[in-house]
Amino acid sequence: MDRYIAPVELAKAYRLINHGPTVLVSAYHDGVEDVMAAAWCCGLDFAPPKLTVVLDKATKTRELLEHDGYFVIQVPTAAQLALTNQVGSISLHDVPNKLARCGVELFHLEGVPVPLVAECSAWLWCKLISEPHNQQTYDLFIGEIVGAWADSRVFSGGHWQFEHIDPQWRSLHHVAGGHFYAIGEALDTNEKTAE
Amino acid sequence: MDRYIAPVELAKAYRLINHGPTVLVSAYHDGVEDVMAAAWCCGLDFAPPKLTVVLDKATKTRELLEHDGYFVIQVPTAAQLALTNQVGSISLHDVPNKLARCGVELFHLEGVPVPLVAECSAWLWCKLISEPHNQQTYDLFIGEIVGAWADSRVFSGGHWQFEHIDPQWRSLHHVAGGHFYAIGEALDTNEKTAE
Repeated sequence: MDRYIAPVELAKAYRLINHGPTVLVSAYHDGVEDVMAAAWCCGLDFAPPKLTVVLDKATKTRELLEHDGYFVIQVPTAAQLALTNQVGSISLHDVPNKLARCGVELFHLEGVPVPLVAECSAWLWCKLISEPHNQQTYDLFIGEIVGAWADSRVFSGGHWQFEHIDPQWRSLHHVAGGHFYAIGEALDTNEKTAE
Repeated sequence: MDRYIAPVELAKAYRLINHGPTVLVSAYHDGVEDVMAAAWCCGLDFAPPKLTVVLDKATKTRELLEHDGYFVIQVPTAAQLALTNQVGSISLHDVPNKLARCGVELFHLEGVPVPLVAECSAWLWCKLISEPHNQQTYDLFIGEIVGAWADSRVFSGGHWQFEHIDPQWRSLHHVAGGHFYAIGEALDTNEKTAE
């Protein structure tokens, strides 16, 4: 395991996606692995932590995770802009060597059967909560986060460190077509909050 | 109507939230109006455009929109950091003059019965799609976007203009407590995309 990859306690796992980044979804079933991009991924609950992700019926990744019942949501970095755009544009149904063509390198963590995408900033291992009506009607999938990790150079002490390190680590926020924004400046209030 | 508030075609309405900003939710029923903050709001479909938003059972805003069947999702700006944090921390159940105390100014658009929050960058008027199981089990609400508007100084020609104007217009992306990031630098790929 990469020496920078550190576990994140499940109570703080929501912080890895709370700021609304575009994510990569990886899944595996019966010898086939795939990775896709998803702009529509969102927190759903704190404890146990859950998230939602929208997966089009045309994607192979969706088919794999529906069979396997597990998937990984990962947060790509600005350095992975081209990769993120490509895995969101090409389907494994059409391009059998999609992952190699997009420059995706996969790795494994002990005890996690789903492959993870290397060089991302954070990884959320999710167990699919089966909701057939949502999946069929809305392409909406719910996952319980059962494991979380982050690169300790960009997320440590329970907080993103974007403002302290190379901008190549910043998360990507998709608008449309090939157009994204990176996350920007930190803004803090001194107000007491309910959270 | 403010001369800068311009309609956004429904086919492009998803772009107003695709980059994952923290939003404000406004609702009205029977003489009562409320506004809350929500970090968990996300695109769900392009046509007709839909979104999801997670609303805790403790919020008055949820109660109002469940009665009324309509709500507005608005995108606050960096200039509204304190307001956004405050409306997400105080409940109308506890503080009857919540909106005044948080400095929220409401306005109306012709034909839209739900009040909107002034000085935001974008507004998405939504019709609740009733899904009692999602609402009860997950606090998850689905809205069909039936009207969209943006301030033409920050969103024009179907695109956000963050990189061209005062940083006070940037969207807010909540992490935890009083800690947010503003949206940052524009990043574009020249790759052809499927979208």
